[in-house]
Amino acid sequence: MSRLSEFFPELKIDALLVSGLSNIRYLSGFTGDNALLLVTAGGEALFTDPRYEIQAAAECRCAIKISKGPLIAAVAKAVARKKLKHLGFEKARLTYASYQALKEALPLASSLKPVGPLVETLRMKKNDGEIDLIRRSVEANSLAFDSVIKRIRAGVTENDVAAELEYQMRRHGAQKPAFETIVAFGPRTALPHAQPTAQRLETNQLLLIDMGASRAGYASDMTRVLFLGKPESKLRQMYRAVLDAQLAAISAVRAGITADRVDAAARKVLKISGLEKKFVHSTGHGLGLEIHEPPRLGRKDKTLLEAGMAITIEPGAYIENYGGIRIEDTVLVTQSGCEVLTPTSKELMLL
Amino acid sequence: MSRLSEFFPELKIDALLVSGLSNIRYLSGFTGDNALLLVTAGGEALFTDPRYEIQAAAECRCAIKISKGPLIAAVAKAVARKKLKHLGFEKARLTYASYQALKEALPLASSLKPVGPLVETLRMKKNDGEIDLIRRSVEANSLAFDSVIKRIRAGVTENDVAAELEYQMRRHGAQKPAFETIVAFGPRTALPHAQPTAQRLETNQLLLIDMGASRAGYASDMTRVLFLGKPESKLRQMYRAVLDAQLAAISAVRAGITADRVDAAARKVLKISGLEKKFVHSTGHGLGLEIHEPPRLGRKDKTLLEAGMAITIEPGAYIENYGGIRIEDTVLVTQSGCEVLTPTSKELMLL
Repeated sequence: MSRLSEFFPELKIDALLVSGLSNIRYLSGFTGDNALLLVTAGGEALFTDPRYEIQAAAECRCAIKISKGPLIAAVAKAVARKKLKHLGFEKARLTYASYQALKEALPLASSLKPVGPLVETLRMKKNDGEIDLIRRSVEANSLAFDSVIKRIRAGVTENDVAAELEYQMRRHGAQKPAFETIVAFGPRTALPHAQPTAQRLETNQLLLIDMGASRAGYASDMTRVLFLGKPESKLRQMYRAVLDAQLAAISAVRAGITADRVDAAARKVLKISGLEKKFVHSTGHGLGLEIHEPPRLGRKDKTLLEAGMAITIEPGAYIENYGGIRIEDTVLVTQSGCEVLTPTSKELMLL
Repeated sequence: MSRLSEFFPELKIDALLVSGLSNIRYLSGFTGDNALLLVTAGGEALFTDPRYEIQAAAECRCAIKISKGPLIAAVAKAVARKKLKHLGFEKARLTYASYQALKEALPLASSLKPVGPLVETLRMKKNDGEIDLIRRSVEANSLAFDSVIKRIRAGVTENDVAAELEYQMRRHGAQKPAFETIVAFGPRTALPHAQPTAQRLETNQLLLIDMGASRAGYASDMTRVLFLGKPESKLRQMYRAVLDAQLAAISAVRAGITADRVDAAARKVLKISGLEKKFVHSTGHGLGLEIHEPPRLGRKDKTLLEAGMAITIEPGAYIENYGGIRIEDTVLVTQSGCEVLTPTSKELMLL
């Protein structure tokens, strides 16, 4: 019997259509990019197309249905055949068009019921195998960082550094970056999501690197700031303030407190230096099969942290036309506090 | 006045909410990953969060609304303020949850109307600037391929080759791969979407490489098959059949014929060798800001090809436990035929 189906009575459904690819992977092991998973009390069936016939058979233990046409139509037929009455669907993972197509293809006797982040909620707390994979992802990421930063010199471009970091991630066992590597020099560090450009590094410039590996499907995430030359004291103070905020947030993490409390801990410290308004995002987020997963360590998230959750802690401060600082670790929530998985030094690195 | 708004009377809408990120980029230039674009007859407004405040101002000429909370709520307020009555939304680009949130936040006087792939349809035909970017993407991709294949030896892993290809793409001007690079050795070539593994290349093995670059936002896509050693005649024949199918499909491409005709041309040739049933996907797809765009060159797509469309031509044949062959070029539809943009040789490459 499927673990998910324990939730069915409460949700008043007798089946759930899982459409989020990371949720499908979590439940079935399937890693392809076109699939639907129909979960009933009796078990699971994976619907995919002929390109994935061989792969699905190798990856999944559940029933596999290969369909040449739209997967929604194949699912609707299965729902009719199984006489399912109340089909839940993942409301944040299904487009309106697919919802509409499903509704039109279902027998009149079946109804559709929008369901919130059920699988995502299960995924928040990682099991030992997942924690091990996250550790290995963190390791590949930090090794790649170490191997690249010692070779950074004036004249290198943001693109060069990003390319080298992503290459080294793979050399250290990752399959790909978990997201587009951010490498920003100088004032561009003030863009929290800067994309690397052909801009060249100059002496007395700040560098911000935000990078994550994806290894065996699991993500890591780390941000570090470096300086080529001798930073002025304003910058050192800003760095210290963000680092203090990051350390305060880490100290706040433990099983049993709500996510917003961790965010508040970081903000409180930044307020002392007047940088609170320059911190334009939340303090962190869960990560695992996806780079952004619940909980969100922001002002309004009341999720109770639990041992086994993997999260980032990444406060920052951004001053337009000057620069930005962000310091980020991947962290594992434990019963009494947390384990900082990221081994990389958090001193302001001078090149 | 916005070009899109010309379609509003026919769709019976007075505004369109664009939620597909590639559509938003196409219309506004914004490259961040959290945004909504509200298009009215009077102009466009981009809604994004504070992380992108500086970036949006640099990238977009339209109005910019920075919102700390959910973007849907900010859009609903603007719809109320502007007294818009009939708001279209992209039904294949909005989740059911966002649709529901929008519906609940809108004034009672406003109605929501699902709209099909309007921006995607505009995007099919590329302008000169876009064609130039696709050419440059194709160029980076083929240069990366050339620089790596001459260094492939027995003992290298699929992961090694993929890492090196992606690194070289960036060295040649790409920002990232347009999709996860496929590198498969031996029988794994029979998986149309194989993910690279730690498997090592052995003598007398087939290699399949499917790679694409993303350069200034635009994708390229190419598949080539190589052999380490001397292939048996069965494999050579299979290669020849797929190549003939690919050439036949290319010959069929011209402005004014429907997409399914190109697919049929490839299938007809594979039928001669009895490989038609081993061809488990469609013959190609449009590409541009996304790696998969309409039209789809498959059995059922009746889209009329037009000069300026960029498409892939990629028939294949896959025999389980033996191997797979796919040959793919990026092609530009012209008035009288097509221009094969991919410069890389299509001979079966022997290493």
